[in-house]
Formats: sequence, C-alpha cells, structure tokens
Amino acid sequence: MTSDGPPRLIERVDLDFILYDLIGLEALTARPRFEGQDRAAYDAILDQAEAIAWAKFRNHLQKSDREEPLLEDGAVRLPPEIAEGVAAFHDAGFAAAHHDEEIGGLQLPWTVTQAAFAYFQAANIATVAYPFLTIAAANLIAAHGSADQKRRFLPPMLEGRFFGTMALSEPQAGSSLSDVRTKAVPLDDGRYAIKGSKMWTSGGDHGMAETIIHMLLARIEGAPEGVKGLSLFIVPRDRVDDAGAVGAANDVTLTGLNHKMGYRGTVNTALSFGDSDACIGELVGAPNTGLAQMFHMMNEARIGVGAGAAMLAYAGYQESLAYARERRQGRALDAKVSKTGPVPLIVHPDVRRMLIEQKVIAEGGLALALFCARLVDEKTTAPDPKQRRDSHLLLELLTPILKAWFSDAALRANDAAIQIHGGYGYTRDFLVEQLYRDNRLNPIHEGTNGVQALDLLGRKAVMEDGAALHVLGRRIVETARSAPEELKAEADALLDAWGALRAATLAIGERRDRLGPEAALAPAQAYMEAFGRITLAWIWLWQATVVENQSDAHFRAGKLAACRHTFFWELPKAFTALAQIDAQEGAFGAEPPYPDANTF
Amino acid sequence: MTSDGPPRLIERVDLDFILYDLIGLEALTARPRFEGQDRAAYDAILDQAEAIAWAKFRNHLQKSDREEPLLEDGAVRLPPEIAEGVAAFHDAGFAAAHHDEEIGGLQLPWTVTQAAFAYFQAANIATVAYPFLTIAAANLIAAHGSADQKRRFLPPMLEGRFFGTMALSEPQAGSSLSDVRTKAVPLDDGRYAIKGSKMWTSGGDHGMAETIIHMLLARIEGAPEGVKGLSLFIVPRDRVDDAGAVGAANDVTLTGLNHKMGYRGTVNTALSFGDSDACIGELVGAPNTGLAQMFHMMNEARIGVGAGAAMLAYAGYQESLAYARERRQGRALDAKVSKTGPVPLIVHPDVRRMLIEQKVIAEGGLALALFCARLVDEKTTAPDPKQRRDSHLLLELLTPILKAWFSDAALRANDAAIQIHGGYGYTRDFLVEQLYRDNRLNPIHEGTNGVQALDLLGRKAVMEDGAALHVLGRRIVETARSAPEELKAEADALLDAWGALRAATLAIGERRDRLGPEAALAPAQAYMEAFGRITLAWIWLWQATVVENQSDAHFRAGKLAACRHTFFWELPKAFTALAQIDAQEGAFGAEPPYPDANTF
Repeated sequence: MTSDGPPRLIERVDLDFILYDLIGLEALTARPRFEGQDRAAYDAILDQAEAIAWAKFRNHLQKSDREEPLLEDGAVRLPPEIAEGVAAFHDAGFAAAHHDEEIGGLQLPWTVTQAAFAYFQAANIATVAYPFLTIAAANLIAAHGSADQKRRFLPPMLEGRFFGTMALSEPQAGSSLSDVRTKAVPLDDGRYAIKGSKMWTSGGDHGMAETIIHMLLARIEGAPEGVKGLSLFIVPRDRVDDAGAVGAANDVTLTGLNHKMGYRGTVNTALSFGDSDACIGELVGAPNTGLAQMFHMMNEARIGVGAGAAMLAYAGYQESLAYARERRQGRALDAKVSKTGPVPLIVHPDVRRMLIEQKVIAEGGLALALFCARLVDEKTTAPDPKQRRDSHLLLELLTPILKAWFSDAALRANDAAIQIHGGYGYTRDFLVEQLYRDNRLNPIHEGTNGVQALDLLGRKAVMEDGAALHVLGRRIVETARSAPEELKAEADALLDAWGALRAATLAIGERRDRLGPEAALAPAQAYMEAFGRITLAWIWLWQATVVENQSDAHFRAGKLAACRHTFFWELPKAFTALAQIDAQEGAFGAEPPYPDANTF
Repeated sequence: MTSDGPPRLIERVDLDFILYDLIGLEALTARPRFEGQDRAAYDAILDQAEAIAWAKFRNHLQKSDREEPLLEDGAVRLPPEIAEGVAAFHDAGFAAAHHDEEIGGLQLPWTVTQAAFAYFQAANIATVAYPFLTIAAANLIAAHGSADQKRRFLPPMLEGRFFGTMALSEPQAGSSLSDVRTKAVPLDDGRYAIKGSKMWTSGGDHGMAETIIHMLLARIEGAPEGVKGLSLFIVPRDRVDDAGAVGAANDVTLTGLNHKMGYRGTVNTALSFGDSDACIGELVGAPNTGLAQMFHMMNEARIGVGAGAAMLAYAGYQESLAYARERRQGRALDAKVSKTGPVPLIVHPDVRRMLIEQKVIAEGGLALALFCARLVDEKTTAPDPKQRRDSHLLLELLTPILKAWFSDAALRANDAAIQIHGGYGYTRDFLVEQLYRDNRLNPIHEGTNGVQALDLLGRKAVMEDGAALHVLGRRIVETARSAPEELKAEADALLDAWGALRAATLAIGERRDRLGPEAALAPAQAYMEAFGRITLAWIWLWQATVVENQSDAHFRAGKLAACRHTFFWELPKAFTALAQIDAQEGAFGAEPPYPDANTF
C-alpha cells in the first residue's frame, strides 16, 4: 500500500512501474498485431480487472474455503459465488482478450492479460483456476488443433460456455507421465475410444458449464512405452456435434473428489473415462506427439503456478503490512522510547524483517512473472527471428525457476505473514491462514518442485550447449552494467554469483560425463536454490536501477530498500549452495550426495 | 523404522540409544532420589507409554481434527476419545510420575517422563496438550505454592481430576506480558477478586475435569506498570473449599472459542474473569513476583513446544519414509536401470534428500529435547552445586533454541513429508497434511519465535558475562575432541563455527554499547539461525561419536549419514548467517539492518 490505506490486491503504482517502466509494455504497440492499442486502453482493462476481482472473486474467498465442493446426488455442489465470479470474468472478455480478432479476441498482448490475471490470482486463487484452465486448454487447441477443432471448440471456450481441464495425472502416476496408462483405440470415423482413469483433475466436473473439455493424454493402442507413446486428445464430458452443439453424455464418470488442505474452491476430481466403452476423443495433432503438445499447456500452467504463488505472497504481504501498522504490541528496543505505550508492530525490527522479505518475494515474483509474459509476446511478435528465439530460450529457462523457487519462496512469505499476526494469524478469522494453506499446493501441482529442479539442471541449463543460460547471462551483464554507482557493490555481487553459477553448471556437466546422471543431477535442488536467488537478485537490481527515474520518492525508497535486502540477506545463500555443489564430489566421492535407500 | 515395517511413533532403538548411550540416563539411578530404580523399570514405563499412545491417542488423531471443539448450549463439545485418552494417561500415573513419593509420585527422573511423553506427542499433539498443561500447572504449584495450596490442588491435579491451564495472554497483548491488564483486588480473607479477559487459553473450558485450575497473571491494585507489577494467581473455574472439594462456579465465563488451522483437538478459549465481581483467586508466592514464577511454567512449556514440534517432525518422517518405500513412481536417473518399471520413490536422490533432512531434524530434535530433560534432572539432583548451576545455565540457553529453531526446522521437515507424498500429501486423506497444520502453531505459541530470538541474543547469550555460552562451549569442545578420526573434519568445522559464533556474540555486545539495543538486537533472527544450526551440528556429532559403540550396523550407518548430512548441508548456512551479522554494520552503518517503517 502506498501509505496507510487498506490492503489492495496489487499496488497500482507497482504494477504500472513493472509494466511500463521495467518491461516496456508500450513498445509493443508499435507492432502490427497490437496496432491502435495504447496505454490508456491497457489501463482501462487493468481497472476493470481490479474491480471485478474485488467484487466477484475476493468476495467469496473465505466462503469457498469453508464450504468446499461436495457431492450431492452425484453432482458437484459449489458456492454459487464461484460461478458468478467466473461468469463475470468471461463476460468481460478476459478469456478471449489475447486471441485474434477474427475469432472474437482483442489481440491484446499476453503481458496485459497476465497483468489483469494477477488481480484475480491475488483475489481468489481457487476460483481463478477455472478460467485459468479454460484459457490454457483453449490456447492448446489454438496452437495445435485442427481448423475444425478450433471452429467447434474455441468460440464456446472463449465465451465461457465450455470450460477446460488438463487430464494428465493418473492414480499411479502423478508427475511421472511416462507411466500414463489411459488407452485410445481408433474408431472407424477417425476418432478414438478412450478408456482409463485420471487423478487430480482440477475443475473436472461441476455445473457451471455446458460441457467441460478435457485435454487428455492417452496411449494409442500399440504405441511405444514411455512418454514417446503419448498422444493428446480432446475429450468432452458431453458429446459435441459438428455444429458445436452439446449432446449426450460422453461416458466420463466422476468417481470421487479430492479434499485438500487449500484451494478448496477448485473442485479436484478423480475421473473415469469409458467405463461403458462409450467415451470418444479426438486426436490433436499427430499420434505420439502428445507430450510435446501438452508442454504448451504445461509450460503455461507452470508459469501460472509461479505467478499465482507470487500473488498469494502479495496478498499476504498486503494483509500483514496493514496489520503491522495497526496492531500495537510490545515496546521499542531503544530504551529512550520504552516508557511509552505499546508501539505498532511495524516498529519492531524483526517484524520489518518479515515485511521486507515478503515485499522482496511478492514484488520480485510479480515482476518476474510479467517479464515471462513479456517473453511470450516477444517470442510470438518480435520482428527479429533471433529475438524470438532468444525469448523462447529465456522463457524455457525461467519457467521452472518461477514455478519452483518462487512457489517455495512465496510459501515462506505467507509463513511470515502469519507470524506477524501472532496467534491471530493461525486462526481462521484472518486471511493469512488460508493464503498459506492455498499456497502449499503450488510446490506440488504442475510437476513437483523436485521435478522442476531436474528440469532446470538436467535440461534447461544445458539445452543447445547452454544457449538459454547464455541469453540470461547477457541480460544479467546488461543489468549490472546499467546499475547506478550507488548500486555498484550489488552489481558486482550479481556478476560474481552469475560467474559461480556458470562454473557450477560446467562442473556438473563434466561430472555427468564422468560419473553418470545420478551423481550429476542429485544436487538439483541446491542448484535451483542458487539459481532462484540469483534470478531474484537480478530482477531486483533491474528494478532498483530503473526506479531511479521515478518521481515518487516513497516508491523509489521502497524498491531500493528491497533491492538492498535481497543482496544482503537473500543472495549470499546462493553462494553457500554453489559452494556445497562444488564440495560435493570431494565429500562424497562418486556417491550421490544423499545417503542411499538402505541407510534409512 | 528399522527396516520395512510400518511407521512407528518413535524408533525404540533410537530412543534407547539417546537415553542410555547418549545422555546416560542410568547414571541417575545412583542418586538418592532415584534409589532402587533401574533400566528395566524405565523400559516398562516406555512400553506402557507407547501402548497407550497408540491405542488411546493416535486412534483419534484425525477425528479430533475433523470434529473440532464446538459450543453446544454454552458447553464445549469434544470427541469423547479425547477424554478417554487423557484419562488413560492419568490412570497410568504419567502426570504424577516425577513427583515425590510422599504426594503420590514415583520419583522418576524428568528424563524418563519426557521420553514417555514424546510418545504421546508423536501420537496426538492436540490431545496431549491437556495433560501437558495440567502437569506444568501442577509443577508450578509444587515449586511456588504454599503448603496449603499444594495440599488442596496437587493431588487432584496429579490424579487428573483437576486440569490446569496457563492464562497469560490477553486480547490486546499476546507475547507482550508487560501489557497484561487483568486486575486483582485484595479481599479481607487474604484472597483476591479477579477481573479481566484472557485470550488463547488452551484447555480453558471443557467437561473433562471436575474443575480447571487457571494459573493466571494479574496486576494487584496499585502495582507497578510493566512486568514488575505482575502477580501469579490460582484461579479455579469452580470454587475449591478447604477440603479440596469443588463447589459453586467461580465467575469464569467462556466468551468464545478460537478456531485454528491445526491443534484442533485442543480447545482454545477466550475467557472472562469476574464479570459478576465474584471471581476469587489465590496469590501464589509474593506479590509482584508473578512473572518470575510463571517463567517456571513458561520455560517448561517452551521446551515442551520444541519437543512437540520435533515429535511432529518424527511422525512425518515415519509416514513419508513408509510412503517412499512403498510408492513406485518415476524412473531412476541412471540410464542403465531406466528401462525397468517405476521405482520406489526412495530411489530418487531428491526424495532421499527430503528423508535425510527430516531424520536430521526429527532425531536431532528428540535428542536435544531429552538432553534438556536430563539437564532438568541435573539441576535438581546433581551432587555437585556447580554441576547444578551449569545445568541450569545450559538449559536456559538451549530453551529458546529448542523452542524456536527446532520448531521452524520441524515445520520444514513436515513440509518435506508432504512433498514426498506429492498431491496425495496435500489431501486430507494422509496424516502429513495435518501434522504440517498442527506444527504451524509451534513457532507462535509460548512466545513467538521472534521473541525467542531476542531472548537468546539479548538475554541468554550474555547473562552473567556469557556464563551459559561458556558451559555450552565446554560441551562442544569436549564433543569435538572425543570425535573419532573419521569425523575429524566435522569436529573441526564445529569448532570453527563455535568460534565464529563467539566472535559474533562479542561483536554484537560491543555494538550494543556503541549503537544501542536496536542496532545490536535487530539481527536476532540471523543469530538464532546460526546458533540453531550449530546446536544441531553438535548434537549430531555427539550422536555419531557415541554410536560407534553400537552393534547394530544399520542403525550406526543411519546416524553417521545423518551427521554427515548435517555438516555438509545444514551447518554451512550458520557461517552464512554469521557473515551477514558481521557485514551488517558495514552495510547499514548505524542503521538497523531492516528498512524503517516509513519505507513500506
């Protein structure tokens, strides 16, 4: 909050700074796709998002936690406010906004829609899951579906008549897609009979939509084992005819609801497909290319998870900052003022520690998430093919970091928000308790953070001879060089850290050649820990550098303080982690750095 | 677990090792107070504790979470299993076990009763709160009550007919006792009329006891402001006559229940005393000495909180270890085995990382908690007064560390237990989800961890010219010197870390003289972070050294691996924190290390 006002979903001055000053959103308006658009139009969209998010999403945040989805006569019962919120979202056109004008979209930059989306995430992460999944499913069809599939499915999804899901995980295989068993048997008409069980499908069944479009991974009869035998299917809950009209049920059975610690407003389902051998799916793209296509949706979802986690951190920061200003408790440590009455919590240094930690994670996470959205725009609309390519590589690299490191950090931020509230924060009367429970899911879904760490170290950091790392390195050097003199020490520390990370990456690659993948990849979590902190430091040095031009002195001081905090308290732990990776081989020889299974 | 068995509350081989090999419990039997006792007797008590904890506490762990306390016609409704469990605990004599034989106790060492108690904590932390508070309240009366108070209140409390509570916090003052407002007005008969409101009183009202004895802090009319004006009172919910019989209500009103994220089986209350000016309390000890006396109970409670947190970590470790062995998912990283089917989760290095982290925290926390219990026995029964004194000092120093560092670490352990379970761990079908929610309270109650950090740095580390630090230092040097050759590197690292901590302590003291308390105490959390990790490293080097003599090779290998893990992955972060404290002044000048309140 700018001064002593009530908590806001997002500080608008912060969002404006990130969008317009930091990541240069307005430059996009010079590109053909965004012709005729301007800042005023973008601002109006953000205003609308904020208003709907407050009125139609935040209004039932606690209610949809307390009245979690229940089965009533085989149907999912949800608080009606969820449907009202999602309808308001769709009615305002947010699901369609980034699509081509010719299919009913506004051709807005992805960056703008994601900034708008951040308001909804901060307001109610569980309700936003429904449009989130619908948008991602529609994007997947737009990218890989046939012309006919686009014609029949996209319009109702963009209008919010059809909802979408990701149906990947199965009871025996969560993050491990190579073990997907759901079968697809070709039918005479080119479609497929689907049979199998899916687990953890968010939004898998409810009464809010005409039908629900499951983007489902299955194995066509005779396909290879492992991920190379996976194909992607559109499997609607109800049959959809050529004209796009919804008909009879498609033999998709809701077999159970999963009851979770948080995200309770998002109905989470176990589904059975083809129990009566009457479930029909349509292949998307070529057979056995399902995983590659699904990564389109998964990458988007992973960025969304990291962004959502950051917005939960943002919400907790706003709540605990307001509380720390209002609640009086204890005395200042300085003797000279100790005779006065209780002071606001914010006077205590340790409370300010917990506030600045949250600010660093929340605002840093939002900036990184919107930078990632900007990369999506770059990779699709940049005039220069090399720029598109570089943006693609950088996005690939940053995706697991935003998803994993920032979701862990965001949970830490929400933990601090509770701690600032003391005993009250642990009760269900204050929002921070729910934010923390909601956020605990983010390190798990869309691939556990352990899987993300392997993705970062085993794939993204080394792909194309480290090309993505090189792109980020250029950015980091550029940021360090443009930092003002007063941030020289921070700039040097960032370059040192980056050099150490590069060295560790090379050493691990060499270790992999010599000792095999297990010894090399075992410290993936430590690598993620270091990489995440360096990314955080970079995003803050960048912000502190750009903010120099801002006229709002209070805002400037806040960004500068957060940058300083990051470099003083957060970045040094990256060096510790890198030193541990470096020492690992000496300490453990050819052994992996964790005891073997028989030790336990 | 020793091999592939089901989860246990505590590994008995581990408990035996800690009690008999590490902290030398049997040596106590040579002391007059424990004459005639032996290991067989202690073992029988532990057997009994384990059996009751399984049958009568663990049996309703989930039920008492799901059916949280409700008000029904003004009375607290609890699942009946809670009363049954508590009754079984009392019937077996656990509340009285450490007391003098002359008042019905067994004169068992505190260490034995706390080892037994650990079983109950691991089984059901919420139900155990009732006897925990009753025992602590009885101990307080035994230490500071008059002969008459002991006569009337102790027997029914030891038998479980009267329960006890701590009634300290008030709605406007949680951890800040100097702002306690509850009033006590002297009556003609030497007793006091009590009037005020208390908040967060665990076990404050229910139907399980004949009456409930509130150990309450209040301010006698005309007493000084601040903590120096607090007096301690016995305030029963119902009047207790000279013969110890329970009579009419004592004007204590239940004004509300607090509904929390976890610990739901522990009814948490808001109470009002003296609404009808008919609440009578008895002073304990001298007027205005209440806080000093209450610290008897608070210190015990703080150790109990740390121990309880460690046992929640222990429970989560057991659950996730069993799951990691049973659940097959993913492929091994090594190419040569990747063609096989899914492997047990424990094969994945990152899962083993999360298991060994939990083992380090859970078993390390249990060892430290029982060492603290041993110090209680030392300070009361050691033949040498200096040994008593040293044990007291060491206990004072370790109390905030066990309470704060280990409760944070234990929450991290429970977080890892969820992560190992993947999506299942986040559902309410698996215990780990509840353990995590339960454990989130431990960094808050009995003084927030921020308050503990101030206690450690501002008081315990510097009291009597650093005498407590000196005692711990001797222990650490002794442990390092007795470490075997193969742990030489670890022993050296521990000594280095201890030296750095000593230096930081001196530097902060000097900074305090020069810059005042705020600049000096602001990095209290970083100091706690370093101190906790050093304590962890010490307790593990000690265990790894002593375990050399164990014949069970598997057990020995496990302890050694946990020690190595601690020194490789956990201890280095202590150096990082100490370096940050050291650099603080250079970076921030005379400023505290966190931005001032106006920055936000």
